[in-house]
Amino acid sequence: MVAKIRNLLSEKGLDGFLVTNLINVRYLTGFTGSNGQVLITRDAAIFMTDFRYKIQSRQEVREGFEIVVYGSYMDELKKLVSEYGIKTLGVEGNHVTVVSFNNMKEKLEGVELVPLDGVVEDLRIIKSPEELELLRKSQEINHRLFWEIMNFIEPGKMTERDVAIEIEYLAKKLGADDVSFRPIVASGPHSALPHASPRDVVIAPNDVLLLDFGVFYRGYASDMTRTVWVGSRPTEDFLEIYNIVLEAQEMVEERARVGMTNREVDAIARDYIRENGFGENFGHGLGHGIGLEIHEAPYFSHRASEYVLKGGEVFTVEPGIYLEGKFGVRIEDMVYADASSGGLEIITRTTKNINELKIE
Amino acid sequence: MVAKIRNLLSEKGLDGFLVTNLINVRYLTGFTGSNGQVLITRDAAIFMTDFRYKIQSRQEVREGFEIVVYGSYMDELKKLVSEYGIKTLGVEGNHVTVVSFNNMKEKLEGVELVPLDGVVEDLRIIKSPEELELLRKSQEINHRLFWEIMNFIEPGKMTERDVAIEIEYLAKKLGADDVSFRPIVASGPHSALPHASPRDVVIAPNDVLLLDFGVFYRGYASDMTRTVWVGSRPTEDFLEIYNIVLEAQEMVEERARVGMTNREVDAIARDYIRENGFGENFGHGLGHGIGLEIHEAPYFSHRASEYVLKGGEVFTVEPGIYLEGKFGVRIEDMVYADASSGGLEIITRTTKNINELKIE
Repeated sequence: MVAKIRNLLSEKGLDGFLVTNLINVRYLTGFTGSNGQVLITRDAAIFMTDFRYKIQSRQEVREGFEIVVYGSYMDELKKLVSEYGIKTLGVEGNHVTVVSFNNMKEKLEGVELVPLDGVVEDLRIIKSPEELELLRKSQEINHRLFWEIMNFIEPGKMTERDVAIEIEYLAKKLGADDVSFRPIVASGPHSALPHASPRDVVIAPNDVLLLDFGVFYRGYASDMTRTVWVGSRPTEDFLEIYNIVLEAQEMVEERARVGMTNREVDAIARDYIRENGFGENFGHGLGHGIGLEIHEAPYFSHRASEYVLKGGEVFTVEPGIYLEGKFGVRIEDMVYADASSGGLEIITRTTKNINELKIE
Repeated sequence: MVAKIRNLLSEKGLDGFLVTNLINVRYLTGFTGSNGQVLITRDAAIFMTDFRYKIQSRQEVREGFEIVVYGSYMDELKKLVSEYGIKTLGVEGNHVTVVSFNNMKEKLEGVELVPLDGVVEDLRIIKSPEELELLRKSQEINHRLFWEIMNFIEPGKMTERDVAIEIEYLAKKLGADDVSFRPIVASGPHSALPHASPRDVVIAPNDVLLLDFGVFYRGYASDMTRTVWVGSRPTEDFLEIYNIVLEAQEMVEERARVGMTNREVDAIARDYIRENGFGENFGHGLGHGIGLEIHEAPYFSHRASEYVLKGGEVFTVEPGIYLEGKFGVRIEDMVYADASSGGLEIITRTTKNINELKIE
């Protein structure tokens, strides 16, 4: 990764690049603490932090980085910039605030600061084998969590909020660092809101229940949605919509290919849902990249800026149909774009067969 | 608050101020969703959001704001800026990134953008009676949580991580939105690390246990630390340090007055700890403001930029002494600077008497 950033230095005529976003710092170095920066020059790679992380940084930071423990970050940066003769310094323009940028400009007099956009984020799109393995493990924990929760729910007794709290609790008990976002537990007509917050409302029998949650495992996120039926006999209305969403979802998983654009991948599901008359009821994008963040590039949507699938991406496939006042259905897997086969490999192994997704 | 921002417009010669930080948006309007902005002009106050929050914004946003639901944020902003004849627009320079700032500049051609620093944050320092009440309730839940956890811990059986997970679980069960930060549960020598992460290590009898946690209640944070003894008879070494920290802590609570600077307040504890020979072992600031964020202005430290206590602030008082390889002691209350008495009112009612803080 450092080599790739060095290529960028040559390309852009920069003497150095400064990484200050903590997730990007973690990605490059492995450091998990709350304060650290990376400076990459043409022949040095430096990790900087304060005295609190002296020991932790030695344990975590990958080989190839020189570790510097400072009293004052700005003083240290100033020293390094002069030591390495940096005249033009790239910074993370999509993270650095205007106030910080102006402060830096003042303190690093004589250095030209060049704000760049999404440099490390772009590198993060293609996952390494180690990252893929952690993403698989993250979703494996999430899968186990899903079934524990299916067994935990007692219709007519528990509220959406009770279930959400249990998800957060069990995630950690099963070895996750934490949940990767606040769980969505939405029953009945509430399932028609794509971003529903869990309510103090009892989950009623003979209705829809939408469960959308994920965990972090060693920093790597998982994310899955299953729409289940509370009771033994789903209604015809529900089954009709469920099957359209499921077909749209599986169509993407079967037909998406390396070389397609994100919009083409999105269109596989969107066109099918539209042909079935529910185009207006699928208001969000098809999915998003996933890694150290729950939502990261690339985004699969008819509105997102163009991206061509290269192989190595991990992302979600999550079409939905939302019928206001009635119910919503969303089905979400994590997938891996496999450069060797050219197609998608499904990471999520949880069943999508509605007959197996009942809480009786 | 809107009136205060309008004063600033006149002062700085601005036609409008744009608030994009979600916590600041919540503070001004009451809106709790994940996307919303506020535009304040000399005679209008506008809350903007997307279609997902159409209903929620009507329920939450306070009177006095016009609600606008947009398709595209930048298009809407452009329209409003032209409609209200805004030529100079203040923005939150401490939140807006360089990339966003440059994008805005391009899209809002002809408008001068003026980055300001901490405008709403400064307003947030002085709490309203309603905010004070929510902060009290937040700490009241935290107090109940503390005693549930004291009863929950079984020395020799449970790990630090087990206890941390239980804190996060019970917080929500007791009615909190969530914890306000990842709990610190640090036993034995680990308590000497001010920012210790819970480990998979069993809490042993006859040793120190440092518990530092808080919750969010309707958005408002609480934060408390108690250092307790696992067992019935604390060692002399521990009691000596405990009493110095406690005296330093109570000295601040008794002696701090409206009109003092943050550094003077910090010095009450710092000087006392130094006089007792442990100056080098109190490496962090005395405390921090608390409200919609767990850490917010003002900061009480010998290094922080100067702030004079005005009355109306809510902040933490949390001195500590950390003996590497042995143990650490920190005691933390939330306090309210009372303008009418001129002194501090202690919000946290949990005992600091070590004889009542034992897990036997």
